[in-house]
Amino acid sequence: MDDDAGAGPRRASRGRGTPAHRTTADVTPTSSDALSRPTDTPGTRILISAAVETMSEKGYNGTSVRDIADRAGMSPAVLYHYFGSKHDLLVAIMHRTIDHLTERCEAVLAGAPPDPARRLRRLVREHVLVHTELRREAVLGVGEMHSIEQRERALLIAKRDRHERMFHRVVNDGAACGAFGTPYPSEAVRGILTMATGVSVWFREDGPLTAAEVAERFGRLALALVEADPGA
Amino acid sequence: MDDDAGAGPRRASRGRGTPAHRTTADVTPTSSDALSRPTDTPGTRILISAAVETMSEKGYNGTSVRDIADRAGMSPAVLYHYFGSKHDLLVAIMHRTIDHLTERCEAVLAGAPPDPARRLRRLVREHVLVHTELRREAVLGVGEMHSIEQRERALLIAKRDRHERMFHRVVNDGAACGAFGTPYPSEAVRGILTMATGVSVWFREDGPLTAAEVAERFGRLALALVEADPGA
Repeated sequence: MDDDAGAGPRRASRGRGTPAHRTTADVTPTSSDALSRPTDTPGTRILISAAVETMSEKGYNGTSVRDIADRAGMSPAVLYHYFGSKHDLLVAIMHRTIDHLTERCEAVLAGAPPDPARRLRRLVREHVLVHTELRREAVLGVGEMHSIEQRERALLIAKRDRHERMFHRVVNDGAACGAFGTPYPSEAVRGILTMATGVSVWFREDGPLTAAEVAERFGRLALALVEADPGA
Repeated sequence: MDDDAGAGPRRASRGRGTPAHRTTADVTPTSSDALSRPTDTPGTRILISAAVETMSEKGYNGTSVRDIADRAGMSPAVLYHYFGSKHDLLVAIMHRTIDHLTERCEAVLAGAPPDPARRLRRLVREHVLVHTELRREAVLGVGEMHSIEQRERALLIAKRDRHERMFHRVVNDGAACGAFGTPYPSEAVRGILTMATGVSVWFREDGPLTAAEVAERFGRLALALVEADPGA
């Protein structure tokens, strides 16, 4: 949760006068550590962090390969070597974000009791927690989907659909057994996912609630939404 | 609700080979009619529609003044004459969108009975309806806020806050009189606003539900969320 730690010094390096090829990066991997894969080099991780930070500030279209490379303290050639293009770097971030989210939520469900209310509550809590940890990645994932080329977009949407099906299954199970009274399980899932994902937009680590408190409250809101016993 | 009508022919004009200064626009004001003001000329309205369409497809940063002018069938000079810059055109769209949304919701509340459940339901329904009518404008309003310069962004956020206060007041009233059981009225409002605004992202006019049906369902979901009697 040290997402913003050191943001000041890092951000200080974004001006045009910044030397392009420092030997030490002024970006250390932070939230994007969650996105790393076993085969990653330190360079890959730093580039991902630098891209997330820069694209979050300037938007994908407003960010150049040079901007990302500068922030990572590398040459653009290194970025091209690892990711091929700015587009493919964004694609990699999006794939890793949705993969991480789904893995976390699947793990929570695997360990949850069969009761639909408890399963939904745990699922929502985990979804919210991930969205407090990977705020910027999640915002990019929603806001820059239109920047992704058709083929990759279809793959990402298929992954997102798979993630959402977990929620639909739990809510449909609860509706089928009478634990959830909502007449609109499909819209209820849309509502839950939208509000739980939206946490990434407004959550602040220095805000009045911790990530765990927000996750807890949204777990209860989700139960209310499906018209379960909210104290379940 | 003829938002997408004629999108095909209009979109056909977006290529690079498009003549820049046609004498007739291939954009007719559609959803953005709701955003027009009495002092607008037909040119202003067409430019706003063209900007909404182009920015929705390519993002703000990926859209040039030339793209908007081409789509509007005007010269860039006309855009500069009316709006000063691409930035100020986006600012105008955002102000008009939030103004329209707030006016519609205030009007609905003004005519609503004092019962908090009915007030909340009507408020949410209207908020959802506006977000089915001004889908692209709403998505731009959320997704491109980071493209707006500081001073204007503060004004827009103040307007958004004023809009949101309507919801907070109604939910707080309901919580105070015991009509709403939620222990988390503040997060409930965040949840309601996020899911009701999110309709603009997924609603399709050719989808399985009409705008009115979606609005009705989200009205009920909102009542469930605050733990009111959902049939109220």
